[in-house]
Amino acid sequence: MVQQARARVTRDKIMQGAAEVIREVGYANASLGQISEAAGVTKGALYFHFNSKEEIARALIDEQHRITREAAKKIMSHDASAIEHMVQLTADLAGRLVGDPIVRAGIRLTTDSSTFDSPIAGPYQDWMETFEQLAMRAQHQGETNGVIAPDLLARFIIPAFTGVQLVSEAFTGRRDLPERVHEMWKILIAAVVAEDRQEHVLGMIEATFSRLERDTRRRQSEA
Amino acid sequence: MVQQARARVTRDKIMQGAAEVIREVGYANASLGQISEAAGVTKGALYFHFNSKEEIARALIDEQHRITREAAKKIMSHDASAIEHMVQLTADLAGRLVGDPIVRAGIRLTTDSSTFDSPIAGPYQDWMETFEQLAMRAQHQGETNGVIAPDLLARFIIPAFTGVQLVSEAFTGRRDLPERVHEMWKILIAAVVAEDRQEHVLGMIEATFSRLERDTRRRQSEA
Repeated sequence: MVQQARARVTRDKIMQGAAEVIREVGYANASLGQISEAAGVTKGALYFHFNSKEEIARALIDEQHRITREAAKKIMSHDASAIEHMVQLTADLAGRLVGDPIVRAGIRLTTDSSTFDSPIAGPYQDWMETFEQLAMRAQHQGETNGVIAPDLLARFIIPAFTGVQLVSEAFTGRRDLPERVHEMWKILIAAVVAEDRQEHVLGMIEATFSRLERDTRRRQSEA
Repeated sequence: MVQQARARVTRDKIMQGAAEVIREVGYANASLGQISEAAGVTKGALYFHFNSKEEIARALIDEQHRITREAAKKIMSHDASAIEHMVQLTADLAGRLVGDPIVRAGIRLTTDSSTFDSPIAGPYQDWMETFEQLAMRAQHQGETNGVIAPDLLARFIIPAFTGVQLVSEAFTGRRDLPERVHEMWKILIAAVVAEDRQEHVLGMIEATFSRLERDTRRRQSEA
């Protein structure tokens, strides 16, 4: 048991080290030597857990997806409207993209076409299904205006968020991500939310994202 | 003069070859040997034009940007409403992303974080400025409903398009890109277009994208 726990700690260290190295030099340039050094483990320990750099990349993507899906499950267990849940899911992911190295690395490896021979589609698919279900619930509960079909909204919102975080990374290293996701919601709300719910929902996103912007600034001034 | 023209042809061949190799094996795995072979030029000729793989990547990004900006200038020289111009710009770029190897490669190299040490922001910036000007014109001409500020629309639409083409690439190798851009516009129109203009604009995007979807299918069945 102690041995298992120790192995788990080593594996986590390797993934943290890999996330750090990938962030600094990019996946293509990252070497297993640099990763073991950043992780503070021997190369032998690294090879005990992973056979290749690609295996580490896949583990980072899986771990990122596990972390964010767990967080999503928790968010959706709270009582809130479907639109509120959607907004909270994107705010939570934006927060982790700014503050959690594993999530940053996992998302970056997913969007980089050069990481693997064939592109990664699974995580996008999971999020689209979640958002389609939420969009259907929003429609049934009269939160939406009925103009945009639930599956269409889900098929757009996941790619749109993907592009927003990518451009935010290119422009500001994701410092302006909370603000950009907030702006995305202003547009989506104008498109899909029922007229008599708009004021309420705009107030809710205002509160959600000003909190996130504040947290992000505080975390960055501490870093 | 003949020599200059020949040098130009060789340079173009190298870029086409590089685009092909990058598409097949990814930028990280592409070697200068593979590129000169795919281009049908000697390694000496390749080194006459480019000192490194990174220089070829930068040339591909520049050439992609030049091609698409030229196309944009032509589109905007035609008489049309600002919203129509915006729609046509995205449809044109979607068509080139499906059909032009240089544009495909240039965009892919721009969105891949691992291509260069520091991310590329210039092309995004140029498109955002163009779209902000168009969104301002749309507002002045009463095409929009006044809910979403022009700069906010531009700041969202470029990242959103970026994500849409990236997810379309991951899911279908960009086969469904025209359809996805069409869907993006349905949502944007619901958000920003003035009530009394919506029907007209929806008809216009229907015509634009069904033409593009037809062209894309034809080109793919020929390929």
